[in-house]
Parts: sequence; C-alpha cells; structure tokens
Amino acid sequence: MSQNHKITLMYNGSTFSGWQIQKNAVTVQEEVEKAFSVILRQPVEMVGASRTDAGVHAYNYVAHSFFDTDIENERLMLGVNAILPEGIKVKSIEDCDEEFHSRYSAKSKTYIYRIDVSKYGDVFKKPYVWRFRYPLDFEEMQKCPQHFLGKHDFSAFMSKGGQAKTFERTIYECSLSLENDIITMTIKGDGFLYNMVRIIAGTILSVGRGYLKSEDIPDIILSKERKKAGITAPPEGLMLYEIEY
Amino acid sequence: MSQNHKITLMYNGSTFSGWQIQKNAVTVQEEVEKAFSVILRQPVEMVGASRTDAGVHAYNYVAHSFFDTDIENERLMLGVNAILPEGIKVKSIEDCDEEFHSRYSAKSKTYIYRIDVSKYGDVFKKPYVWRFRYPLDFEEMQKCPQHFLGKHDFSAFMSKGGQAKTFERTIYECSLSLENDIITMTIKGDGFLYNMVRIIAGTILSVGRGYLKSEDIPDIILSKERKKAGITAPPEGLMLYEIEY
Repeated sequence: MSQNHKITLMYNGSTFSGWQIQKNAVTVQEEVEKAFSVILRQPVEMVGASRTDAGVHAYNYVAHSFFDTDIENERLMLGVNAILPEGIKVKSIEDCDEEFHSRYSAKSKTYIYRIDVSKYGDVFKKPYVWRFRYPLDFEEMQKCPQHFLGKHDFSAFMSKGGQAKTFERTIYECSLSLENDIITMTIKGDGFLYNMVRIIAGTILSVGRGYLKSEDIPDIILSKERKKAGITAPPEGLMLYEIEY
Repeated sequence: MSQNHKITLMYNGSTFSGWQIQKNAVTVQEEVEKAFSVILRQPVEMVGASRTDAGVHAYNYVAHSFFDTDIENERLMLGVNAILPEGIKVKSIEDCDEEFHSRYSAKSKTYIYRIDVSKYGDVFKKPYVWRFRYPLDFEEMQKCPQHFLGKHDFSAFMSKGGQAKTFERTIYECSLSLENDIITMTIKGDGFLYNMVRIIAGTILSVGRGYLKSEDIPDIILSKERKKAGITAPPEGLMLYEIEY
C-alpha cells in the first residue's frame, strides 16, 4: 500500500468553483491534483474534507492522498507551490496513517463569516468579506449566537441539494465580534449541512435588519422549515478556517 | 475663504506610484483630485500628509482640501468612491478649521511593516506584506525595537533624495510581533526621514539574519552613516497606519 499524506492548503475562493472536481469549471481539487501529478510524474488523486461552494475561501483546508515518492515532503510542497495557480498554496504535507481520512477523521470544523459594514468598503479585506451597506443593529445580532449552541436538527438551516442523510449537528462555539467595521461570526461544530453556515449568517443579518428577532431563533430551529430562517449569505464572506482532528 | 476639509482615505499601494502627483505615473493624489473634481464640477486640489513611496499602502491617509459645495460630506464621499479606481477608498470627509493642515498639524504617525515568513506565502496577505523565505532569529529581532525609542539623529536611517533639513526624530513606540507566520513591526514617531521606516525594518531583518547584532544599533545610530545600517526593506510590506493630530 502507498503512503498516506495529510495535505493542508489555503485558497482564495474568488476564482474557483469550489473544491470538488466538476466538468466545465475550474476547481481547487483539479488544480492541486494536476500540480502534484506534474511534480510526482504519476497520477495523484486527493480526497478533500469538504466540498466548499464556489467563491468560499479556505485558510486551512485538509485533503489526503496516497502516493509513493523519494521527494521529501517539504521539497514536494515547494515544487507544487511553484506551479499552482495564483490564489492556492499548500501549507504543509505530512505522512500519516493509512486510516487517516480528511473527511471521516475530522472531529470538528471552524468557519468564519465576515461582513464589511463600512460605508466605503475596506480595500484590504475585499474580496474576502461580504460588503453590506444598510444599517444593522449589532447589539441585537449579538443575542443570536447562543441560540445555535448545542445539538439540534438544523433542517431549517439547509439548502436543497445537499447529500446529508441525518440533520442533527452539534455547535460547540458560535460568537460575533465587530472590529474596524468588520463583523466576524465564528462557528465551530461537528459538521454542517449544505449552506448551513451561510444561512446562519444570513439569519443573524436578518435579525440585525429587524426582519427577525433573536428570540425567534429557537422556534425557527424547531420548525425545521427553511423558509422561516433568513437569507443565504453570499459565499465571498465565508472561510473554512480550521478542521480539527 | 472656502471651507477646509479633512479627508481620510485608504489605498492599496501596489498599483500606484505613491501619493504625490508626478509626470508619467499614476498617483493616488491625481486619482483622488480627479474624482473630487468630477463630482464637485470644479477643480479640486489636495494637500497630503506624506508623499509615501510607490508601492506603499495606507490604512488611514489624511489630506486636506479647500472647496465649497452644497453636497453633504457623506454623499460626496459615496459619489467619489463610486468613480475612484479599484484600490482607493475615501473613508471620511469632515469640515475642519482653515488652520488644519494635513502635514503640519500632524502630531505623530504610526506605520506598520509586515513580513510573511511562511514557507508558502499567505494567499490572503499578499500583496500587503514582504515575503521573506530565509530563516530568521525572531528572538534576536525582538531585542531591536527598544534601541530606536526616544529622540535621535536618524541620518543613518535615511536614503538620499529626501527633503528634510533636520535629522532628529522622536520614536514613541516600536514593537515587533509574530502571529500566523507574519512578523509585524509597529512604529510611531513625530516624523520620519526618507525611507526611515523601511531602513529600520531592513536593519531588524539584518539582525534576524545574523549580519548585525541588536546591540550594534545604538552605535549605528550614533555613526550617522547610512552604510552601517541594514538594507532598505521593499515598499510592499509598508503601510501608513494612522496619523495622529
């Protein structure tokens, strides 16, 4: 059996159609597999921890891949980074047990969602934030995160088209901060349904706009009805921050 | 006399030849004056707080400008931002006393200089950092900032071509931190000679490389000889962070 590898990477999602290979679209998986295949002179396949939607960014994405080579991991990383397109970088390559699986071995994932609420749009944060130009009641928004904590059926916070067969997920941490006109939502859970983080962010935003009240959130969760929750916030504000194993 | 205005702006220096208008180069001042002139339908001139070199970024740059208009400051800002090129944003426009001068009224300036020391190059920090790929002794670098504090003749930390007639400057704060493979130098002073921040950053880097020792810095300052200090660090890592009035 070949050696298994844990590969950590970061990417700017703006110019990619998400992680997973698909026809007629440029994806991160395709670019990363191509770069490894060129340097290793053999076909290389990756299994990623998450599909991630088009436009979503990753600070510490993890994939695993089986291959054998004489090239040291650090030299391999430098070679791959030299030919990867702008916006994708491999941060580390580590040998790991054959049992390690980027998706199934993950204990939890942490996402951040950022909203630029400045009147002008921060030059240095773009394109990694959602720019929102209307007034928001941040104090009211801060009452929301607590309601998502714990184990719940999150069907109300799921878009159609996901592949999940169970809908209960546990949220370990959820918090909101405001600094330099950037609102940052940090959320950590044992797993997330399709678009779940973006719908939670959109629901908190709907509370900030006054369309929903923070104390409505428990009922929205219990209803299991997608239409009761807020909008699906756009992908550019979302970043897969960390995967814990 | 027309109304004086304090104008705060941010810009990504990567694509501009600094602040100050010059022939055959695209500068921030030119773009900002042009945008104000279009919206106000009158020629508008700005006086900026600092020239800033080509490639240097600004988080809170300040200029002042005399003009009269019926347009409210916030509407004017939105109009100007709508036509400014990518990478420049006006953050605020405030009426101010006729005595206010963006340069002469400034009490101090704070700059940050950032070095990306990761092996891969942070996708999200580029192009706002200097990427440096060789090993650095950060512990030794941390002994440097204290030596710059206080009032000194900083002739050794000045490139030729500046317009300063006195060479004493007072440094109020100087510190170094390391987080997520980014070294950040923060420096606040009553003024800076030509390229002074970049030469201080380059000197601290030379200490990190072992070419200089931190305890040599007082003698380098006393020598007033440019050649005794370290290199001039490149502009892309430098950001004018704040101007205090």
